[in-house]
Amino acid sequence: MQEPDELRELVERGLAELALSGELGGLEVPSRYALAGGGKRVRPTLCLAVAEAAGGDVDAALPAALALELVHTFSLVHDDLPAMDDDDERRGRPSTHVAHGEGVALLAGDALLVEAFRLALSYEDVDVARELASATQGMIGGQYLDITGADADLEQLHRLKTGRLFAAAVGLGLRVARVPEPEQAPWRAFGDELGLLFQVVDDVLDGDGYAARLGPGGAQTVAASTAQRLRDRLAEIPADTRVLRALVDELATRTS
Amino acid sequence: MQEPDELRELVERGLAELALSGELGGLEVPSRYALAGGGKRVRPTLCLAVAEAAGGDVDAALPAALALELVHTFSLVHDDLPAMDDDDERRGRPSTHVAHGEGVALLAGDALLVEAFRLALSYEDVDVARELASATQGMIGGQYLDITGADADLEQLHRLKTGRLFAAAVGLGLRVARVPEPEQAPWRAFGDELGLLFQVVDDVLDGDGYAARLGPGGAQTVAASTAQRLRDRLAEIPADTRVLRALVDELATRTS
Repeated sequence: MQEPDELRELVERGLAELALSGELGGLEVPSRYALAGGGKRVRPTLCLAVAEAAGGDVDAALPAALALELVHTFSLVHDDLPAMDDDDERRGRPSTHVAHGEGVALLAGDALLVEAFRLALSYEDVDVARELASATQGMIGGQYLDITGADADLEQLHRLKTGRLFAAAVGLGLRVARVPEPEQAPWRAFGDELGLLFQVVDDVLDGDGYAARLGPGGAQTVAASTAQRLRDRLAEIPADTRVLRALVDELATRTS
Repeated sequence: MQEPDELRELVERGLAELALSGELGGLEVPSRYALAGGGKRVRPTLCLAVAEAAGGDVDAALPAALALELVHTFSLVHDDLPAMDDDDERRGRPSTHVAHGEGVALLAGDALLVEAFRLALSYEDVDVARELASATQGMIGGQYLDITGADADLEQLHRLKTGRLFAAAVGLGLRVARVPEPEQAPWRAFGDELGLLFQVVDDVLDGDGYAARLGPGGAQTVAASTAQRLRDRLAEIPADTRVLRALVDELATRTS
């Protein structure tokens, strides 16, 4: 069973070695620029950890894990555009549209999204790509709530924008490990709350969202109780979930 | 065997009745706005005509045909954005970002793209979605050539930007009709040239591209010879291709 750092290393290497569609031509450069921006690779690492804990093969799960990271990266590239959040920096580097121009960044985001589906479609089990598509639509629906502020229901917004990809990290790990649907429920209950932990901690670190609404102390209380609930969920899963537990602890205590 | 107008009617009805992902919420309105913009529905109509000519069922081919139209529409919504072509109008109506705002149009384009994959993924044959993904990456690569003008090779640009979706219209029709791969070659030879006919006629009508390079007369000559080559290709296909022949004639003689 591989430790979180080993799984992250697999993800980094997989991203570095990923063969993009040749027909993208020069668009490969800005697409790789966006992908190479670092980040914690939380979603793909979770996906690999779930696959391994569920008895699957980590290498076999890698395309699904990378697909999740590509969808996440596509969303960041589009989110950073002036028409959306208008962020000039992303993780200490110029964001993709600043480095490569707006039109090119728009297309690079599109290409990363399609490349994610190409990865998910490398499986003969069509349900892998179906779950990715469903989660991606949910995430996009969340981005819409975010920029329009329509009925700004923070729970619903985050359940979609952040939560759907985290839940899919678990779901895809299960699918790739061929866990029968009737046995997926306790895993999915775990996956459904992961996004909340990630988001609350994010808000505590950024001082917005839940931290703005509940105060830093209130948000930290939500984070702690969510982390505990996630540990309880893991305890209900009849498998060796130590690595997932370590990942929950990382998410709960991260400082950046 | 259904006539072109009947097939187009099926497409229009299919688009009108298409159930989008519920999680898109309010993003459904701008997404439908973009889809309802009319247009000739050339790609989905071709897809249905190929499926029927190849012995398949038109209704079974409808999701694949609609997926093509959604990919096409996504590309138009993003193309019209200020960061790209900055077009305020599309087919006599305000373009999506003028009607709904830039950020929302960006997300609506993303959502249409993912919705296209959801449609393609309604088939158990994973090759349907694979071919759609491959064609979409080619199209995006063509858009990149278009906005960067990098090695502006007009043939390569159009083969990708226009040609790949036209070729996929034929390819998806064949897959849905379950035509065995070894028998697909003459059909695909037809599909590979459809985009050129569409594009040259487009350029004649707009006075740019091939018309600018070859003069109106030169471009019309290319259009006529391409149309003739397409008719010859159809004659080599051992099937009743009358409806496809009618569609080629429409493409060759259209005035808008």
